[in-house]
Amino acid sequence: MGKKYICLDIGGTKVLGAVFDEKNSIVYKVKKKTRAEKGLEQIEEKIIKVVDELIGESGMDRSELAAIGAGAPGVINSDSGEIIYAPNLPWRNYNIRNAIETRFKVPFYIGNDANVGVLGEWKYGAGIDRKNIVGLFVGTGVGGGLILDGKLFTGSKHAAAELGHMVLNTEGPYCNCGQRGCLEAYAGKIGISREIKTQIERGRKTALKELMGDDINLLKSKALKKAIEEKDDLAIEVLDRAVYYLAAGAGSLINVFNPDMVILGGGVVEAMGDYIMPSFKKHIKRFAMPDILTGTELVKSALGDDAIVYGALAMITNKSGE
Amino acid sequence: MGKKYICLDIGGTKVLGAVFDEKNSIVYKVKKKTRAEKGLEQIEEKIIKVVDELIGESGMDRSELAAIGAGAPGVINSDSGEIIYAPNLPWRNYNIRNAIETRFKVPFYIGNDANVGVLGEWKYGAGIDRKNIVGLFVGTGVGGGLILDGKLFTGSKHAAAELGHMVLNTEGPYCNCGQRGCLEAYAGKIGISREIKTQIERGRKTALKELMGDDINLLKSKALKKAIEEKDDLAIEVLDRAVYYLAAGAGSLINVFNPDMVILGGGVVEAMGDYIMPSFKKHIKRFAMPDILTGTELVKSALGDDAIVYGALAMITNKSGE
Repeated sequence: MGKKYICLDIGGTKVLGAVFDEKNSIVYKVKKKTRAEKGLEQIEEKIIKVVDELIGESGMDRSELAAIGAGAPGVINSDSGEIIYAPNLPWRNYNIRNAIETRFKVPFYIGNDANVGVLGEWKYGAGIDRKNIVGLFVGTGVGGGLILDGKLFTGSKHAAAELGHMVLNTEGPYCNCGQRGCLEAYAGKIGISREIKTQIERGRKTALKELMGDDINLLKSKALKKAIEEKDDLAIEVLDRAVYYLAAGAGSLINVFNPDMVILGGGVVEAMGDYIMPSFKKHIKRFAMPDILTGTELVKSALGDDAIVYGALAMITNKSGE
Repeated sequence: MGKKYICLDIGGTKVLGAVFDEKNSIVYKVKKKTRAEKGLEQIEEKIIKVVDELIGESGMDRSELAAIGAGAPGVINSDSGEIIYAPNLPWRNYNIRNAIETRFKVPFYIGNDANVGVLGEWKYGAGIDRKNIVGLFVGTGVGGGLILDGKLFTGSKHAAAELGHMVLNTEGPYCNCGQRGCLEAYAGKIGISREIKTQIERGRKTALKELMGDDINLLKSKALKKAIEEKDDLAIEVLDRAVYYLAAGAGSLINVFNPDMVILGGGVVEAMGDYIMPSFKKHIKRFAMPDILTGTELVKSALGDDAIVYGALAMITNKSGE
């Protein structure tokens, strides 16, 4: 009887779960919607429920389960399994590892979702064998992960790589974090949505109005992609604007890290990579020093939506010494 | 007979040289002006001349010299001793180590000046035993150095930590590097001088006009300090503006690295630290995430003008396994 691993990508509104076999292949995968309003306060029940369902639905035997891994938003101490701080919730210093290991009697590993995503790309995806990698994941916000000198860098208190909160304009638009002009405020879906809404209010004609409908406060990547395919002027313009700022942030990070590779991932890049990558490679020349930019690979995530579950697998196989 | 080390801080217009004894104490120190127009093309002759003079003037015996260390501007491969790229000069891939070791028959170590400066602060100065340190050195430009996970981080091709070339405003003023809105373009002496010159041209009354005289294109820190002590409005304003941007850059770096400590050094900070540090600590709250900022020590260089020669000593003692 082989060993199986269950790996989870825990978001605010959905959980992506995968069952890996002993050859590190996904043998079962499911995406489940969860109630957003409950947020991370319910993370423990959410994990338990999804793991139970994955065991049942995938047809694996419970005794085959060798370990569980997960990526989740927030500041997480991967060494202790403690959630130090989760965004928008007054919930601190909760040891989720103890709770899950007590329940399932197998080792449980958890890390920040973007950190875990870059770990996945480094071990199994676009960044294999690279020494220094900057990962930027564009979704609702912009998450970051860093591989430095051949290991995941998490800073002095597990909070490093908040790459979405580099300032790109000192007096720019307010970000959800309370700062102004953050990369995330321009390049994340919240920032893009704000720009679309403003332009519609200014009377710009756009297919996005109908495509977004009631979701005008939070863009769906599919709607933006569809509008771009229809050659909608505003859609093309707002995406290029977001990518310009993404390139500004990535350019600064290239000057700071002199990495082998910058990996772009997350839902927005996954949906519109064909539009984003050429524009990104053009704009970044304005922001990275030419001598450092030369030789830096600029690539799209190879694992796409699976980056975080693969990263969770990497935490398991790293820690168990495989 | 003990061992002595000669350590050099090589700048565009001056070389600071120090003789260290076997107890890592400076026993002789001298600052020499060199002709700026010759720049780094003459680095080899400059090093040879200063080392010869230090041996002669300090009264040490030539046979006591055990090693030479140096910090210099540019992208430098500290492993091979090769100067890969030096600013403003078409001079690439020159192995200065071979040249110096052939001449003096002792080991020679060289690194980027700001990198070497943070190494000095980490081994002998403000950052002893810290795991993660961001160093920002404000002079003509803004240099940077990074200690990450307990070692000097130099990136994939020895070019990391160009912290002065993070973008702070995507359409900001041009920087000497060709980008716009770099930290260096605001907070370095070139940026501060540009602001003073512009304000004088706009008719602002200021003691700086007389204090700077013909040097209006490149501020002397002493002149700015004197004007501030005289409570000159413009002087106070331009320094605070520079520190605001320094805090914006440092705030982003705190979000990126979650360091134990940020060290500010360089000539401008050395001259005006008493004015800069309180202003820096105030402004940074706007740019660093509160949860990450808490617990990050914000300090002034402890070694001051000697940071680079101490860093050169650290390279020597590290490499020789002491």
